[in-house]
Amino acid sequence: MPSTRAKIAIDAMGGDHAPDEIVAGAIRAVEELDVEVFLVGDPIQIQKYLDGHGATSPFLHVVEAEGVVEMCEEPLVAIRRKPKASINVSMQLVRKKQADAVVSAGHSGAAMASALLKLGRIKGIDRPAIGAVFPTLDPERSVIVLDVGANVDSRPKYLEQFALMGTIYSKYVLGNKEPQVGLLNIGEEPSKGNELALKTHELLVGNPAIPFKGNAEGRDVLSGEFDVVVCDGFVGNILLKFAESVGSVLLQILKEEIPRGIRGKVGAAVLMPNLKQIKQRVDHAEHGGALLFGVAGVCIISHGSSKAPSIFNAIRLAKEAIDNQVIQRIQNYTEEHQALLGQENQGAELSEVASGTTIEKSE
Amino acid sequence: MPSTRAKIAIDAMGGDHAPDEIVAGAIRAVEELDVEVFLVGDPIQIQKYLDGHGATSPFLHVVEAEGVVEMCEEPLVAIRRKPKASINVSMQLVRKKQADAVVSAGHSGAAMASALLKLGRIKGIDRPAIGAVFPTLDPERSVIVLDVGANVDSRPKYLEQFALMGTIYSKYVLGNKEPQVGLLNIGEEPSKGNELALKTHELLVGNPAIPFKGNAEGRDVLSGEFDVVVCDGFVGNILLKFAESVGSVLLQILKEEIPRGIRGKVGAAVLMPNLKQIKQRVDHAEHGGALLFGVAGVCIISHGSSKAPSIFNAIRLAKEAIDNQVIQRIQNYTEEHQALLGQENQGAELSEVASGTTIEKSE
Repeated sequence: MPSTRAKIAIDAMGGDHAPDEIVAGAIRAVEELDVEVFLVGDPIQIQKYLDGHGATSPFLHVVEAEGVVEMCEEPLVAIRRKPKASINVSMQLVRKKQADAVVSAGHSGAAMASALLKLGRIKGIDRPAIGAVFPTLDPERSVIVLDVGANVDSRPKYLEQFALMGTIYSKYVLGNKEPQVGLLNIGEEPSKGNELALKTHELLVGNPAIPFKGNAEGRDVLSGEFDVVVCDGFVGNILLKFAESVGSVLLQILKEEIPRGIRGKVGAAVLMPNLKQIKQRVDHAEHGGALLFGVAGVCIISHGSSKAPSIFNAIRLAKEAIDNQVIQRIQNYTEEHQALLGQENQGAELSEVASGTTIEKSE
Repeated sequence: MPSTRAKIAIDAMGGDHAPDEIVAGAIRAVEELDVEVFLVGDPIQIQKYLDGHGATSPFLHVVEAEGVVEMCEEPLVAIRRKPKASINVSMQLVRKKQADAVVSAGHSGAAMASALLKLGRIKGIDRPAIGAVFPTLDPERSVIVLDVGANVDSRPKYLEQFALMGTIYSKYVLGNKEPQVGLLNIGEEPSKGNELALKTHELLVGNPAIPFKGNAEGRDVLSGEFDVVVCDGFVGNILLKFAESVGSVLLQILKEEIPRGIRGKVGAAVLMPNLKQIKQRVDHAEHGGALLFGVAGVCIISHGSSKAPSIFNAIRLAKEAIDNQVIQRIQNYTEEHQALLGQENQGAELSEVASGTTIEKSE
């Protein structure tokens, strides 16, 4: 009898610590979560790790791939030149409906290009967006920010579509009954912002399907006031990377300041359990990865530096998206509201759609 | 005999805690720094505070102004309609060379508009930029980021001029012999970025006066790798406000996590001195304010919520800029290199130049 577990293809060869840490994360996932995992890559290396760790779960499969897209490669060229690379084979499993999601810690531009090539955009969506979930001041509430890296020089209607997809995710996966959508901007008033923000503001106000609350300033992103924040990938990517670094900077300052003197040593020893908890609340490993919205399949893009805990969380994120039918819900919405979304360029070239943040502009 | 102290005009009526906290900061400044301060505003309120605190320094002056630009007012309209508002009178003192700098915690858009109207742009600079100094992972090194709010939809040459002004500040005020300039961007490679970043990169590489190191990603801003980071005011303002909030969020998490249980209480008591130090390193009050680059006078724009310690620091920042002749150095450079900077729009309307981030677009 076929398994009813969510089926997830893992690019076992992508990332700084592949394949070992990727496989380790997958092993734990099939033990603790209701998932079936397809480890895609060099079968010899993968099987060696599985054997070395006594992993015999029937829900762990090895799928052969040849090669991997390296971090230095130009994505569009690489995914075409290496059709059997692990990321391509992973996407192909989803395309053939043998899996419902892909998780990759490899080249994010290549993951996006491969997804666009093999899965295609959801009808009605002009551009995909990478969405990252951040913790907020409210421990019960997260915020999804998109786009954090798929596009630069976005058009207003792309941001409108990001808002739509983010709302669906926030509602059905993060469980916010009435998600509040914000437009990342530089002031509260509708009259504030650059050209893109001003025009997007109008679109968001005018779309009844988007619970648009208003502008979200830089200080509001993590306040808990918004559940979804939309922006162009340029500012989103800078914000994402800055946020990751600020967490490190502050924890570094903490480590530097705390051990000073014997008072510090005592204090540090006493507080170590609390510091661990603090680290958990801010550390990206706890979050797993970002989701690629707008393609016809669940894709989780994890940090290149991901180790087993991050991969475990990425798989969990994929499962949540599958279980809550994120793709289908987006597809349903865009079908119903084609005119409203005013999409264009259904025939846009892959190179145009894929030429975003994470991908070098072709000469 | 005239005083040789740096002369600083303070907008005593601008800010949430004006005039009392502003005056308090000024009182401390004339005691501890080599400055002469002109408190501009309602003489009755100012004198009342001075008298109530026994402040009798000969280096504290009261200059009468009528009214203040409120936070809700449209700046260009307000500064024209209220010629005797405290910000205008402060700028007028600098225009008449009775002071060398202005410090204001009031409406930042109004401060900028007033500076442009009364002091004008330095010849050769197309747009002013607001520059904020951030601490970095290196405790000995700060980074100046500009523009954090004066402009949106900047042109590449504006960013080139920001780089120039930031380099001068970093060299002569922050004391970095060979400042490293970065362009805020989304990847290391010159081929990465949006249209603005791509074109600006070329200009920066091509200008021998700018020690351009390369792209600075979001994670590099606070790394200590760069001394100057240039960007458009839209992303800069979002980053600035986000940075301020992340500091608060992390300190909030710290406060929430630390007191748990008796271990926590002991730990907290022991660590309180260290936590204060940590707070100092991240708190904006320690930094004082942002500098408005590109106008013919030193202008420090402080947070609306500034209290006496921030005002004291803002005055100190102003003094450092005066002592190190920032304005003259920028003027010297642009005079020598007029052709190189390729400036335009010397006759640009005030409304066009001033219609940046901090100012509402006029209908």
